[in-house]
Order: sequence, then C-alpha cells, then structure tokens
Amino acid sequence: MKVNGVAWRSIAADGPHAVRIVDQTRLPFAFATLRLASCEEVAHAIRSMQVRGAPLIGVTAAYGLALAMQRDAGDAALVAAHAELLATRPTAVNLRWALGRMRALLQALPPAERAEAAWREAGRIAEEDVAINRALGAHGAELIAAVHARTRQPVRVLTHCNAGWIATVDYGTALSAVYQAHDGGVPVHVWVDETRPRNQGLLTAWELAAHGVPHTLIADNAGGHLMQRGEVDLALVGADRVSRTGDVCNKIGTYLKALAAFDNGVPFYAAVPSPTIDWELADALREIPIEERAADEVRVVSGRGSSGQPTQVTIADPSTPVANPAFDVTPARLVTGIVTERGVAQPAGLAALFAPPRAAA
Amino acid sequence: MKVNGVAWRSIAADGPHAVRIVDQTRLPFAFATLRLASCEEVAHAIRSMQVRGAPLIGVTAAYGLALAMQRDAGDAALVAAHAELLATRPTAVNLRWALGRMRALLQALPPAERAEAAWREAGRIAEEDVAINRALGAHGAELIAAVHARTRQPVRVLTHCNAGWIATVDYGTALSAVYQAHDGGVPVHVWVDETRPRNQGLLTAWELAAHGVPHTLIADNAGGHLMQRGEVDLALVGADRVSRTGDVCNKIGTYLKALAAFDNGVPFYAAVPSPTIDWELADALREIPIEERAADEVRVVSGRGSSGQPTQVTIADPSTPVANPAFDVTPARLVTGIVTERGVAQPAGLAALFAPPRAAA
Repeated sequence: MKVNGVAWRSIAADGPHAVRIVDQTRLPFAFATLRLASCEEVAHAIRSMQVRGAPLIGVTAAYGLALAMQRDAGDAALVAAHAELLATRPTAVNLRWALGRMRALLQALPPAERAEAAWREAGRIAEEDVAINRALGAHGAELIAAVHARTRQPVRVLTHCNAGWIATVDYGTALSAVYQAHDGGVPVHVWVDETRPRNQGLLTAWELAAHGVPHTLIADNAGGHLMQRGEVDLALVGADRVSRTGDVCNKIGTYLKALAAFDNGVPFYAAVPSPTIDWELADALREIPIEERAADEVRVVSGRGSSGQPTQVTIADPSTPVANPAFDVTPARLVTGIVTERGVAQPAGLAALFAPPRAAA
Repeated sequence: MKVNGVAWRSIAADGPHAVRIVDQTRLPFAFATLRLASCEEVAHAIRSMQVRGAPLIGVTAAYGLALAMQRDAGDAALVAAHAELLATRPTAVNLRWALGRMRALLQALPPAERAEAAWREAGRIAEEDVAINRALGAHGAELIAAVHARTRQPVRVLTHCNAGWIATVDYGTALSAVYQAHDGGVPVHVWVDETRPRNQGLLTAWELAAHGVPHTLIADNAGGHLMQRGEVDLALVGADRVSRTGDVCNKIGTYLKALAAFDNGVPFYAAVPSPTIDWELADALREIPIEERAADEVRVVSGRGSSGQPTQVTIADPSTPVANPAFDVTPARLVTGIVTERGVAQPAGLAALFAPPRAAA
C-alpha cells in the first residue's frame, strides 16, 4: 500500500543479508524503517512489536531463520534459531506455521544448501501472504458490497485492533476487504476501536487516512453502544489463531465486540488467511496460550508532546498492580463467518472449505 | 473517606458562601481542592468534570442553586440558575432530581427566605447522599460476603468507571459495598477497568489503594477474557440513570461487561441510590439522552511526564474524526440485581421496593 504516494510493503529484503521493516512502535507518530540483519534482531523486533500482526510475524520469523542459516547452517543452529524465534510470541499461530514450514524444508537439505534455500523460501512465504490476503480481501469486499446493495448507504464496518496492510506483508486481512470495497466504488465508513493498551487502532486510522477511507476513531468501550443504536452494519476483525471449529483468537476485547454484535444482530466476521488456522486445535478457549504482556503497556501511553515530539506519559503509578492479557477467544457460536482466501465459511464449514479434494469415485 | 489519613468528603461547605471540592481532573496525579463561590463556577466544575459521578453532580448542583440564590433570589434568577445548571450534563438524572427538589422548595417560599433555605436544603441533600450510600453499601457488602461464604476465597469483583467515594459525597455506590465488605473482614480483590477515554478507573485504583483494598488495573478490553477464565465472581458498577424497569445507564462500556457477565454466568449488579432512578422512564435505550463529549477526550491522554510533572500526550492526529459517547444502556435483562439503600431488587422488582406502603385494609 502507499504511504505519501510511495508503494510500501511492511517487510522486504534489503539486499541478500537483511530485511527492512516499518518500525510499528513509532507509528503513527513517525514513519521509520529498520534494517534487521540477524536472527537476534528479528527476534527482538517481534518481541517488542516493532513488527506485529499474525501474518507479518510469521513472514518476519521466516526471514529470521534464513538470516540464522547465513551465519550457521548446521543442525544445532537450525534447532536453536527455530526455538529462539518460536519463543518470541506465544499466541499467533502463523509464527509456528512459518517456522515449521521453514524447518521441515531445511532439515531435508544438506547444510551447504540451507542458507540459499531458506532465503528463497522466506521470500516465497512473503509473496504467498500477499496473494492470500489479496484473495481474502476480494471475498470480504463482496460481503461489504452486499450490504451496500441492500441499504444503498455507506457501509458502516466496525473493526478492532489493526488487521491492515502493516499487520501483513501487504493488503491486510480485515482491511484488505475494506480497501477493495472502497477501491471498487462501494462507500465504506470504518469505526476504529482504539484497542488499548497498545492502541493499534491508531495504526488502523493512519492506514485508512492514507488510503482515503472515511473512518471514526472510538474508545473500545463505545462499540456496543453504536451497535445498539443501529450504527454498525458489519463487524470485521482479523485473527491471531483460529481453531478448526471456528473459534477466533484475536486481540483482547474482540470477544466483547462479538457479544455485542450477536446481541444486536450485527454480522460478525473474522478475516483469516489459512496460515492463521490451527488445524490441531479443537477448543481454542482451553488450548491457546494467551500472552500476558508487560504491565507498563497499560501504565504508559505514547503520543506526541506539546511541541510534536514523541512523548510518553505514565497514567498509573508504578505501584499499581496491572494485568495485561493480549488476546481473547471469541467462541464460534458468536461468529457469523470466516473470510478466507478460498471464500467465506460458517465456522462449522471451515474444515470443509480446506479439505483436500476427494478422488472421483 | 481518608486521604493520607485525613477524612475528606468530595464536597463540603467552605463557610456560608462557597463550597470546596476535590478537583477530579487532577486526580490521581495531584490531590487538590477548589473553592466554588458562584453558580457559574459550579456549572463550569460540573461541565469540565472537576466534579463527576451522578450523585456528586446532583449535590454540587444543589449548592450551585443555593449560591445563585445568595446573589439574586428572585423568580427569574431561580429559573435561570436552574436552567443553567440543568444544561451542564444531560445523562445523569441526579442532576435533574436535585435541582427539581431545590426549585420546588424555593418556589414556594418568598424570595427573602430563599437563600437561607437553599443552603440548608443543599446541605440536607449532601447528608442524605452519605446516609443513602452507607446503607446501599451495607446491602452490597452482603452480596460480596455471600460469595465469600461459598468460596472461602477472596471475592473477585469487576468494576467499571469510578463509583467510589469521590463520585458521591462519601462512601461511593459500588465501592461503598467493597469498602464495607473489606472493613468487615471479607477479603476482596477488585478488577479495575481503566475506563477510556477519561480513565476514571485510575480514580478507582487511587481510592482502593488509599483504603488498602487489593486491586488490579486492566484495559477495558480485558474483562470478558477474565470472565471466560472464571476469574470474576461478581460485576458491580454504579449508574447515572436507571429506569423504573431496571435498565441501567452508566459509563460507556458497561453494556459490554454486562454482556460478558451474562455470557459467563457472572452476576451483574448495579449500585443505585434512589435519586438515580428515573421513575418517569420506561425504555432507557430510547429515552435517555446520551452525552457526546469532546473528541479531544479520546485524542489526548493525561498523565505524568518523565520528571513527574502533569503532562498530556496527543495520541491521534487532530484531523482524525472521533466519536465520544459518554454512556450506554445495559438492558434490564442483563442485570442480576439493583443494589439500593432499601435492599437488593431484581430489575422487575425495583418499583415494588420503592412503592409507598399501602394503607391497611
């Protein structure tokens, strides 16, 4: 997507020995890139949320493993780099998926061939991410267009967190649908949940403004009220891990919006590229590890100071106890549909959508 | 309640011609009081949320009308002051209730007697507020004690916004129950919703810390997840206006917590002094005016800067469109009970609890 008229991806190879990312901890206050040239730098970038978003985390980790192979392509180094990267964030399954795919490929190769193969495979995962989210967004845009065809009014979409192009390599997941609807001439207005404590809604507002999509920022508390008043046509979010049964693990607070959508008859969709589906998972509520992040994410808020410089304020005393779970699980019963690159499925139909074709009888 | 060992009320007469309030826009970063000596100063304090909380707004407005009568006790001045104060905040019904009570009393008196009568009546309303919330809290404390009697564990109460002593003259509503349970030896732990955009949860955390009640601050997004995990025994909030049918209008986001409580079998109570009940209201969702507050409440966050000084940061560009509804309505069907000074009623039983006693047959 474009920033000030220049096409960007959230991650790209920077020569053959490094990747360049957009530093998301500085957005939306500053647009700055970072060069990551080692597995350690990649691991730090994921942990510190310089890169974030389940799909982008997976791609970045794949590049991290490739960078590790450039330094040492032995079996022990492969195992160690895989473990280091896997430990950066516990919840998003794309991380495990991308690292597993890389490791399976590399283990089968002699060490001398691993560095080159790893770099190529990481690039392939990145390109697939773009293709998947372009396809997924087209299906999502049809949902938005269908509402417009019925109401002839701008379609009011509520989203939570940032499921935009900077959460992926390009396009985004939930926002891929919004962008494609908008670009296709369907009027869209997005209610943007602020998404405390990390305020990823500000990234969403920044993306939407850059692309010219009308939007309104709201506190996380406001969405239920808007739905009660009939001001939301569609809730559309991303996901960090989805069970084969259609439970959706996503940014903390998603479950509350799904409850409100259900209570008010507002369709609730999750936009889910297939690498975000954890086919091993039956009961997301019991089985997904929910990351507990640092208390200071709640206590300290970043923004701009009075003269425009990046500034932080402490809103709660350091002695105030804080809990900071980063994700929650929306049970499949509250989910209208899962938007994937293969189309839209009801939660119960997700497995069938991805089932291998049966041999003709 | 005590601040650093000194007993305080959130409002008190400061001589016969002024009141002294705690400036809540400076809490929890600074504890400072303000002297209000005119109706205009009182109106400003309510509008700017230097005083806030439905019960305290009512009491403060009563004093505002009394101060107006000291300047001019004529009929026109009475009508004008009533109108000015009534327009400060639209949602909390205590404001209308207190002003209506004052006006009815004063209209029946000759102007020469109004100033003194008004001052006395405002003081009476303040004392009644204390008595009501002490009684209400005792009933709420019984609910908390009953959970403890069953579990023999610390009772985990989730609350939203600030329904503490500084939202009233003293004791608080929801927190009156918590304080009385705690003081009675029942172990309590409070999950404190941050309550964006105005972060009244920080006031709650400050109050609880001052009183020694264990608590944990959380983002507004986290409560549903905690309930799913079985970590909340009881949700207990205040209210700004309650219909005779038990619909609860309270700080924006309360509805989302009520939905999560209902979905997880967690009892959801509102602590409601009777002046917060609007007996004229049947359908809160349609009939209560929901205040839309300034966009900068969402865009700008207040805290302490790096050297401890009060500092603000802008988190969203001034060009970012913002919606900021300040309250929402939790339908009675999601409310387990309403805690009043007369006891706890199911929503449908609220009217009966306050029905005048019938004459013996």
